[in-house]
Amino acid sequence: MISTDGGFRIGLLGRGTVGGAFAALLPRHAERIERITGLRPELAGVMTRSSGAFEEILARSDLIVELMGGIEPAREYLLAAMRAGRHVVTANKQLLSQYGEELWETARAHDVQLRFEGAVAGVVPVIRVLQEALAGATIDRVHGIVNGTTNFILTEMARTGMTFEEALAEAQRLGYAEADPSEDVDGRDAAAKMAILARLAFDTPVHLEQVRYEGIDQIKPDDLEYARDLGLELKLVGTAERIGAGLSVRVHPIFLYPAHPLASVSGPFNAVTVESEAITEVTMSGPGAGGPQTASAVLGDVISAMIPPASTPPTSSALEIVQDVVSAFYLHLEVADEPGVLAQVAQVLALQGVSVKSVVQKGLGVQARLVMVVHPVLESRFQAAMDLIAGLDFLRAPPRAIRVLEEEFG
Amino acid sequence: MISTDGGFRIGLLGRGTVGGAFAALLPRHAERIERITGLRPELAGVMTRSSGAFEEILARSDLIVELMGGIEPAREYLLAAMRAGRHVVTANKQLLSQYGEELWETARAHDVQLRFEGAVAGVVPVIRVLQEALAGATIDRVHGIVNGTTNFILTEMARTGMTFEEALAEAQRLGYAEADPSEDVDGRDAAAKMAILARLAFDTPVHLEQVRYEGIDQIKPDDLEYARDLGLELKLVGTAERIGAGLSVRVHPIFLYPAHPLASVSGPFNAVTVESEAITEVTMSGPGAGGPQTASAVLGDVISAMIPPASTPPTSSALEIVQDVVSAFYLHLEVADEPGVLAQVAQVLALQGVSVKSVVQKGLGVQARLVMVVHPVLESRFQAAMDLIAGLDFLRAPPRAIRVLEEEFG
Repeated sequence: MISTDGGFRIGLLGRGTVGGAFAALLPRHAERIERITGLRPELAGVMTRSSGAFEEILARSDLIVELMGGIEPAREYLLAAMRAGRHVVTANKQLLSQYGEELWETARAHDVQLRFEGAVAGVVPVIRVLQEALAGATIDRVHGIVNGTTNFILTEMARTGMTFEEALAEAQRLGYAEADPSEDVDGRDAAAKMAILARLAFDTPVHLEQVRYEGIDQIKPDDLEYARDLGLELKLVGTAERIGAGLSVRVHPIFLYPAHPLASVSGPFNAVTVESEAITEVTMSGPGAGGPQTASAVLGDVISAMIPPASTPPTSSALEIVQDVVSAFYLHLEVADEPGVLAQVAQVLALQGVSVKSVVQKGLGVQARLVMVVHPVLESRFQAAMDLIAGLDFLRAPPRAIRVLEEEFG
Repeated sequence: MISTDGGFRIGLLGRGTVGGAFAALLPRHAERIERITGLRPELAGVMTRSSGAFEEILARSDLIVELMGGIEPAREYLLAAMRAGRHVVTANKQLLSQYGEELWETARAHDVQLRFEGAVAGVVPVIRVLQEALAGATIDRVHGIVNGTTNFILTEMARTGMTFEEALAEAQRLGYAEADPSEDVDGRDAAAKMAILARLAFDTPVHLEQVRYEGIDQIKPDDLEYARDLGLELKLVGTAERIGAGLSVRVHPIFLYPAHPLASVSGPFNAVTVESEAITEVTMSGPGAGGPQTASAVLGDVISAMIPPASTPPTSSALEIVQDVVSAFYLHLEVADEPGVLAQVAQVLALQGVSVKSVVQKGLGVQARLVMVVHPVLESRFQAAMDLIAGLDFLRAPPRAIRVLEEEFG
């Protein structure tokens, strides 16, 4: 690597959706990265279709980030960069699923890092986990929803009864599908990602052309109706699994029972489940490849290439520890069955600024209880209300409260 | 590091549940690790409560694995090992949540690795992801179910209506709770883990004593009844989040709406969700700390310490790519509404050894269709049956088939 005076120079090849997001992300995080790594990252040059010369950018870079996509000249540039002793980061799944062995071999031969977290499942760190965390496990199977476009389409079809064509148009409108969506909907994009995952999980060379795949363009609304009737979820799932002394890698639509870890993955999300006898299973999920998500994965790779492994950087002590926060609560009161009880409780709550969202009165006589949910409030205020309520003489047992997480999801 | 002739010597401190599992796991994986790293790992010495001298083990080890637990002498040994230039791996959450800064500072000062994936969430690689994959993201919040004992107890209470005491006894019977479960059920174990996660996610020193925690021993069966009525899930959740210029770290029981990524985490499982504006959210889940799971995480750390970062090892080419696999199928046939149709289809299926699990006849006249699910069968056999069915003259449209994943989960 070229030594620099406190700077770390990154050559960027490609400035499309992901490349542009990366170029925007880097300066925003430069200060923080300098704090973590001791080196200030900077863009040494950007090569686009119409401008920039590779040799010049390489000469003044410590690391090359390849986000052009396609096979050539991406392959040629990555090989040249590694032969020149530079670490490289790429998100190029087509390239890795077809020329991965050549690239990994070159990285080993020149003792440089070749990182590619952004190539599969966006910011879901499945590459890192397979390469490092699970290096000590014998993996039996990998299941993945690795294409966000098709998962979004299937989710919309199931939710609304739309046809495939309608849901695809909706995905294009929202930016979840490209103008030419054929590699997504026919399963080839997912097949390339599964080839990469299978290679890492099973130490076996897997070429894209060895992966059987099937897409979702033949799925009809009544297939999803059937799924709903039976409580099943229809997903486009990639599978890589040991079968006897062999390895099967394939992608196809499949019905999942609701308890399967991938069944609840909806919208443009990705998820990967890794199964192994020793560890049972690990599932990772998150947003699939969008520009900012993939750029964030690429930046994580860049930072990893900059820092010594497994170092915990010094703290910045920037944040104070806060003790009082805002929460919603469920409140359970065992009360005497007499008039005016609810009014008194409500008055105490109001006094502390606690606002009631819903109330249920349950049971009669010695079984009588008030169960309520209150809106988010500073916990100290709620505690003060609880202390006052605990002193009310119609309470038959100490009040019980449990927090309620109010965030919206899904 | 001491150079050795092709061997990599590991000194093991502690041989309890996790230490014993690690000592058993290492020789089983030695050959594979040698293939990945080029070095053959071996146990150089084991220190137990009654045997082994630390100084002797240190002198003949390349790396120290600390699985004794507790503060002293674990702290003293880890510090001494790092000062002697050895990488160290530990799963000691108590120690890291109270003396983490001292340990991480020592690792930086002596340029050695201090890895601790096993300290939080067993084999779920949350430490590695926070330290590396998400190093480029500004994290807003971390939510975690980080104690498998309490998650098992809450799941059992919700499932069966048991009291806390009954569910705890069940957990102890199944080995999910220790004889003295107090640190698990009172939330202190989860608090220690959240202190570690918060430190990594927010670059802010967090001591166990700064984490507010609450356990699950006060939860009553009717709280879970209420949850069921409202479609909520009750979980013991640890939270670390930015609040203004501050950081709140806390653990308490909380109701979750079903779409929350942690709501579906049941039994002795752990899961952590990391939220950040740039990446929305990433969730990782898997079995919580059991001996074999934690030992597997520890072994992953050891392997990471042995290999150069981000290298993809050469393939072993041990597995052949298999093209024909066994699957269950859903089969959708648009048929003429006439007698004998089902019999003919059934005959064709039987001819190819395809066994029917369930059949539904839907619609009448030109809407008539047969929807069936067949038992797992070699895909080539099923395809042969499909080809024959496609030739039957009462079919009004080509047959449609989608795979069904038959595995049991949950």
